[in-house]
Amino acid sequence: MNQDDIKDSDIDIVIGALQPDLTSFLNEWRPVFSRFHLIIVKDPDLKEQLNIPEGFDHHVYTKPDIEKAVGASSTILFSGYSCRYFGYLVSKKKYIISIDDDCLPARDNEGNLVDPVAQHITNLTTPATPFFFNTLYDPFRVGADFVRGYPFSLRSGVTCALSCGLWLNLADYDAPTQALKPQQRNSQYVDLIMTVPARALLPVSGINIAFEREMVGPALFPALRLAREGKLRWETIEDIWSGMCAKVICDHLGLGVKTGLPYVWRSDKGDPIESLKKEWQGVKLMEEVVPFFQSVRLPRTATTTEDCVAEMAKSVRERLGSVDPVFNHAADAMLQWVKLWKSVGSGSSTPGGA
Amino acid sequence: MNQDDIKDSDIDIVIGALQPDLTSFLNEWRPVFSRFHLIIVKDPDLKEQLNIPEGFDHHVYTKPDIEKAVGASSTILFSGYSCRYFGYLVSKKKYIISIDDDCLPARDNEGNLVDPVAQHITNLTTPATPFFFNTLYDPFRVGADFVRGYPFSLRSGVTCALSCGLWLNLADYDAPTQALKPQQRNSQYVDLIMTVPARALLPVSGINIAFEREMVGPALFPALRLAREGKLRWETIEDIWSGMCAKVICDHLGLGVKTGLPYVWRSDKGDPIESLKKEWQGVKLMEEVVPFFQSVRLPRTATTTEDCVAEMAKSVRERLGSVDPVFNHAADAMLQWVKLWKSVGSGSSTPGGA
Repeated sequence: MNQDDIKDSDIDIVIGALQPDLTSFLNEWRPVFSRFHLIIVKDPDLKEQLNIPEGFDHHVYTKPDIEKAVGASSTILFSGYSCRYFGYLVSKKKYIISIDDDCLPARDNEGNLVDPVAQHITNLTTPATPFFFNTLYDPFRVGADFVRGYPFSLRSGVTCALSCGLWLNLADYDAPTQALKPQQRNSQYVDLIMTVPARALLPVSGINIAFEREMVGPALFPALRLAREGKLRWETIEDIWSGMCAKVICDHLGLGVKTGLPYVWRSDKGDPIESLKKEWQGVKLMEEVVPFFQSVRLPRTATTTEDCVAEMAKSVRERLGSVDPVFNHAADAMLQWVKLWKSVGSGSSTPGGA
Repeated sequence: MNQDDIKDSDIDIVIGALQPDLTSFLNEWRPVFSRFHLIIVKDPDLKEQLNIPEGFDHHVYTKPDIEKAVGASSTILFSGYSCRYFGYLVSKKKYIISIDDDCLPARDNEGNLVDPVAQHITNLTTPATPFFFNTLYDPFRVGADFVRGYPFSLRSGVTCALSCGLWLNLADYDAPTQALKPQQRNSQYVDLIMTVPARALLPVSGINIAFEREMVGPALFPALRLAREGKLRWETIEDIWSGMCAKVICDHLGLGVKTGLPYVWRSDKGDPIESLKKEWQGVKLMEEVVPFFQSVRLPRTATTTEDCVAEMAKSVRERLGSVDPVFNHAADAMLQWVKLWKSVGSGSSTPGGA
């Protein structure tokens, strides 16, 4: 789909509210967000009332909405950072953009405010090129092209289904890295967008992402929950897990994943030293998770994202179930997610379909 | 090896001279090149005497030197852009850096002169991370690190054996792209270096590269020669071909390939419209070449780069020999290169060895 054909009403911005007062967050984003519909999902653990400034077309979903849709004793917990996924489920739009509530607009190297919605939509509406690396990066950017040696048959590219943005100031490091380098802040704005090659895995961060809802939504779920998961990003890996599912499925279905621009400015918060006690579980699990996703293969009969997730859940149970009980829980949650997606969500996700 | 342990005498700079007057080229590079030994290989088709300004520690190799080493009726032709490979063969240094004779020093976004030797050596002496993508790119750059979700077991990385630099002004496009966009110039200096993921192929451009000689040299050869190959970069694909061999071999041996910084400034030259007549052969061949390299597998018994090239030559003959006679010639040249490397060159190339 051409970028010019995208209407504002094709886009939902999903915000998981982990803090009650969204006033300064939304006021800072007003120049970017005010044209779009906002889905705000309140962390069900949050007791205080939400504070939302005027002038935004929005809908707030709270604990009763979640319970009504998925039941109180669900395998899937929509608390903490996982609350945002409920927004993915209830959206009916073509594109979803999701940004953490501790992020503010960033500035590029020339000092201009970055519009992450526009950049994510550009990323999603220009082709991705996962099957051969272009040394000048995104060949569809103004002033760039395919380099010598790039096969002409691969130059039309494929649909980009997932766009992963980055972070200035507080980068998305894990607790050990934060604890080891407490002063480290990311100040490098790399003016770049690129397709992650097929069969290469990346840690998808949920802080700042956008995707085609029907194509990728069935693969973005809160399934892997750490035993002592907290309310800080570095205490979670649910996005890393579902991101790897999504990347493997995109590779299987011939869809593209991009990373790079746009940046958001991430505010400081939390004490990484405190989190270290909890985080090691996530760090240890990754040593099992990565080899699994590097080797998992999906059957040819799996032609939709929902099929692929169901197959993946089967493999998770078979190959990781005996390693740690969290993986069995993840497999169950993945299957429940597909069911929810079909009942609450709109269902079909044929790649290329509208 | 630590960057601080690299002596100037560990490095050879190899220049293929396709033009007789190297005065302005070398004078522009004097601040960077004058500390190093230069291997200058004169294109055997070039009749005029070379003009080399004073003050450079250099050795010039000419047609008689080539004939003495490889014989007059060799399968491998060291003419045109291929003359530089003779420099790879006679070097005895740990690192080789090679830059085309139509390139000048570039400036970064702050206007500082780029030192490609220093940057290439940094790339080669810091680890590469081909087995998992880091969304903040090179984790070993100052101010960067591994992001959340990056497995700790993969954070030590592997040896980087090949560093591919880029080009400002005239980018390395093929003749059709140049002809279609005659005004297009690359002005985007992307301040980035990254590892190309394992199993992802890239078109390695020979314009601006550096490598560990013993590890990669046996895989960098002038083997694929187009029927009407000329004296312009876009009329050749010998570097693209050997670059794909090198990437597949690096993947097989667990070595890394980086791309990005450093940039060089490439001068305008030549008429792409004229070259179009010749270029289409290269463009057509790529449609066969890429699927071949995407699927070729090397046996476990191939544990050195020389072994791998010999095995690759066998596969080229078997799978591409019937497609076009240039591939049979390439296979012969690859085998001859390995022989030459063992006799003229120093021989052993055990990865990790000195």
